[in-house]
Amino acid sequence: MRIEDHSFLKQQVAELLIVRASGHCYDSQRKYPQWELSNHELKRLLNLGVGGVIFFGGSTKELENRIRTIKSWSSKPLLLCADIEEGLGQRFEGGTWLVPPMALGDLHRKNSDEAIALALEYGRCTATQARKCGLNLVLAPVCDVNSNPANPVINLRAWGEDPFTVSQLVSAFHKGVASAGVLSCAKHFPGHGDTAIDSHLELPQLDCSRSRLNELELLPFQAVIAEGINSVMTAHLLVRSIDSKKPATLSFEIVTNLLRKELGFDGLVITDALVMKSISQTYGSGEAAVLAFEAGVDLIMMPNDADQAISAICEGLRSGRLSMNALDKALQRRRKELAKVKVSLQKQISKKCNFEDDHLEDHQAITFSRALVSRSLDIRHPGRLSATQLAINLVRIDGVFPSQVLTNCSPAISLPEKAGFRSVLCHDLGVSPWQANKKQPLALDRFGEGKFLVQLFLRGNPFRSGRGDFQEPWPIVIKQLQKLDRLAGLVVYGCPYLWKKLLGVLDSSVPAAYSPGQMPEAQKQILSALIKPQQKKEAMAAQNALDFTN
Amino acid sequence: MRIEDHSFLKQQVAELLIVRASGHCYDSQRKYPQWELSNHELKRLLNLGVGGVIFFGGSTKELENRIRTIKSWSSKPLLLCADIEEGLGQRFEGGTWLVPPMALGDLHRKNSDEAIALALEYGRCTATQARKCGLNLVLAPVCDVNSNPANPVINLRAWGEDPFTVSQLVSAFHKGVASAGVLSCAKHFPGHGDTAIDSHLELPQLDCSRSRLNELELLPFQAVIAEGINSVMTAHLLVRSIDSKKPATLSFEIVTNLLRKELGFDGLVITDALVMKSISQTYGSGEAAVLAFEAGVDLIMMPNDADQAISAICEGLRSGRLSMNALDKALQRRRKELAKVKVSLQKQISKKCNFEDDHLEDHQAITFSRALVSRSLDIRHPGRLSATQLAINLVRIDGVFPSQVLTNCSPAISLPEKAGFRSVLCHDLGVSPWQANKKQPLALDRFGEGKFLVQLFLRGNPFRSGRGDFQEPWPIVIKQLQKLDRLAGLVVYGCPYLWKKLLGVLDSSVPAAYSPGQMPEAQKQILSALIKPQQKKEAMAAQNALDFTN
Repeated sequence: MRIEDHSFLKQQVAELLIVRASGHCYDSQRKYPQWELSNHELKRLLNLGVGGVIFFGGSTKELENRIRTIKSWSSKPLLLCADIEEGLGQRFEGGTWLVPPMALGDLHRKNSDEAIALALEYGRCTATQARKCGLNLVLAPVCDVNSNPANPVINLRAWGEDPFTVSQLVSAFHKGVASAGVLSCAKHFPGHGDTAIDSHLELPQLDCSRSRLNELELLPFQAVIAEGINSVMTAHLLVRSIDSKKPATLSFEIVTNLLRKELGFDGLVITDALVMKSISQTYGSGEAAVLAFEAGVDLIMMPNDADQAISAICEGLRSGRLSMNALDKALQRRRKELAKVKVSLQKQISKKCNFEDDHLEDHQAITFSRALVSRSLDIRHPGRLSATQLAINLVRIDGVFPSQVLTNCSPAISLPEKAGFRSVLCHDLGVSPWQANKKQPLALDRFGEGKFLVQLFLRGNPFRSGRGDFQEPWPIVIKQLQKLDRLAGLVVYGCPYLWKKLLGVLDSSVPAAYSPGQMPEAQKQILSALIKPQQKKEAMAAQNALDFTN
Repeated sequence: MRIEDHSFLKQQVAELLIVRASGHCYDSQRKYPQWELSNHELKRLLNLGVGGVIFFGGSTKELENRIRTIKSWSSKPLLLCADIEEGLGQRFEGGTWLVPPMALGDLHRKNSDEAIALALEYGRCTATQARKCGLNLVLAPVCDVNSNPANPVINLRAWGEDPFTVSQLVSAFHKGVASAGVLSCAKHFPGHGDTAIDSHLELPQLDCSRSRLNELELLPFQAVIAEGINSVMTAHLLVRSIDSKKPATLSFEIVTNLLRKELGFDGLVITDALVMKSISQTYGSGEAAVLAFEAGVDLIMMPNDADQAISAICEGLRSGRLSMNALDKALQRRRKELAKVKVSLQKQISKKCNFEDDHLEDHQAITFSRALVSRSLDIRHPGRLSATQLAINLVRIDGVFPSQVLTNCSPAISLPEKAGFRSVLCHDLGVSPWQANKKQPLALDRFGEGKFLVQLFLRGNPFRSGRGDFQEPWPIVIKQLQKLDRLAGLVVYGCPYLWKKLLGVLDSSVPAAYSPGQMPEAQKQILSALIKPQQKKEAMAAQNALDFTN
């Protein structure tokens, strides 16, 4: 290749980019238009040679359509990926939504063989549904060891809290994904588990020694590399013991010396999204892309400005700052991995006009997801939850625009209502339920008389640091309600650390339950177990008509 | 046809039914599983001969897929319809959402020619997008004259408050629909405009004289019948001056004597949904269907139990209670109307594998919808809304599961936030913003210091009677805030009667605005006009990145 051939060089460099698109068809349907390219831009960049697209949102049927359209805009095989760490249903409506990986980490302590078998099926289920929509790269497993319970961004997404458990489960997950003919991606290298800052908002630091890294963070990555993982995603994380200046994504020490040379990984290295503030508030799109490439990365994910990223890398190659050899190597790696999914891609294309079986629900996946839910619940005093007169179903959710966990027929609302509770929803944008009294933080005058069923849908979520989910005084609320004999029941969906904290203050006679998953199936299993039989009878009759998962 | 041939008779009768399906593909995606058939049931009923499906929810792309699948389950041409009274986007995400018809009724007072031209384009736009998805029957126009401002269910859905305006505009709408090769439906016969009860919940009565009916309610229906409207939908409404016992849907006097004979309508007569409580709480599925058929109806919409409806009509035909002649006539009418859309249906089928142009936004419709919004706004003191320190953006919405009007990037949230307001959302399921003091009803301690921008998304909505939307003391809140000099601005999206009421107490110097439409485009136009230029500059820059409709 001649460096002088600008347009050809630009095409080659563009191939290394992954840009973000909504899974919906029309620009007007985008839920995050600040991050999701318009169709006009997307078409232009694909025409320029951009080689990958990451999708967020929409239903599985829309995504299928969308991917067909997007393929028609490109002349090369594309990497088509999504952040599906908890089943396709986590991102795409109509897909199966699985309990968070941490649930299997917990199970692993009790029955490691079962947990490993389920992790394999977890990967297979995710990848099979992903491939049906036309995706060929699943951006999972999370290989971070959640050794820090205060971690706001990894948390339940991790497969465990110790490196041994995580290593076994992520290896199994990868095998499952591979068995479905889809590529997988280990993230976030060299390990994002021991951080208390969300890298979507700021740059977190990892202050441990190099030897601790060897004994903890690196082990799951080594395990999946040994299993032939297809790609590794770098973390936006300052690892002082290796590189005190540059975050892992931009660090030659970490990407080339540690990952490539020391750990011997020769697959694709992908940056985490460069739009994340931990990178973008310090580095421009061009500089970030050049630094990542210089560090040894192959693929550049979601730069703020794709054109700037391409131009800057081209300029770096022309000036000699970046090596043409590295470009060739990155392109080769990309093609080598894509070749592994080529068969399934072609199969997908030839299937495109078969509408006959479009209605077929993936019953195997639904059964699997139900079993995972039921294996992961902690239910105390089943059949003992009942509504007093004027009882209140206080539901705390993370977001309402829209809420992924609640709809008009969610069991968390419909089952308590049928049993006699009336629902009150608390969320970040709602009217405040709090008062100044620190010992009695819940403003009871907002709710009227009656006992409370408290249902908390809280988990570590990206972008939410400082929004108060974890600062809220739920343990004190539990005490406040118990003192007044107004606590009918407690359910936590999500954060296991919050559940443990609440158990510490909960009167042991109160009906209570925990589910790592927040999906309707978890709500249904928990509430139908907790609600008192005579009240349950009505509730279940109602729920059968409303059944989500039949 | 021999009456003895039970299975053939059943097939024929089944053809008269319209059953309800979600626009989503999978059972697990249904938002109203109590009303929307599972795919198994749907397939069974279509196989039995059911001749029509009404769709709710999903995106336009999903609906397109869905209709292809459903057609493959039937051996006959189907009536495929939806309640799209305000553009396809009212029911199906990705379609264009138009301002409510009442906006054109208002415009008609100022410029009747323009309003008529826009009503025609309104029908054409709705039907063109509907046909693109495979629908062939638009269940509109609403021909009710909204002569009662307290009407909880018609309200903004009507094309005006006087029969002359409504007649002109519904005729134009019908012509627009017809020009796109789609069938239309005049509803709700003999006129649902003068009722204060929601027939989804109870049976309303119309107590006016027969001569008043002639002078008001019947005129728009006569107008569209003269224009060749394809179908008429009956109201679940007791019209005492004609039939003191049976609601219109089940009344021979109203359907046969008034509509067929007196008004000379020989097209399809369709019942409103028989699941609605005004019918279903008094009549079983079988009896309701038989009574409707006996009254002279052709098509039975959404019976609670389709099998019971079919069996009961078959039994009525065998016993001689119902006439075979009427059955033949109903089937003939159905086929005659379907024949009118046959061409477009076939065109649709042959287009089915063309994915290339799937990304094309309907720019003509978007431009039209923007123009309608801008023609319908009432903006007072543009450029004068500014955020004081700690200012509050109080947003009252009808529902949150999900909210059709608000998402994470809605201008009603994002524009005030960029100008310095912080948002607090009030809705039926949220923490109460009220306190007992009737003169100061808003619990200001819930909101902290700062001035309020009050944005009310309230309109007459089905199923909401008694939920308090209109009982809430917003006029007193406006007084309360003005007295404290804490009202920064007021916007009403929806109910024109609420707007008029609030104008009666509003200090004339307060920046304020009204839009009949609640869509993001209306929010954007209003707030970018109201917000003070120096604050707007930032807000608009932010909104351009977030633009909904580009």
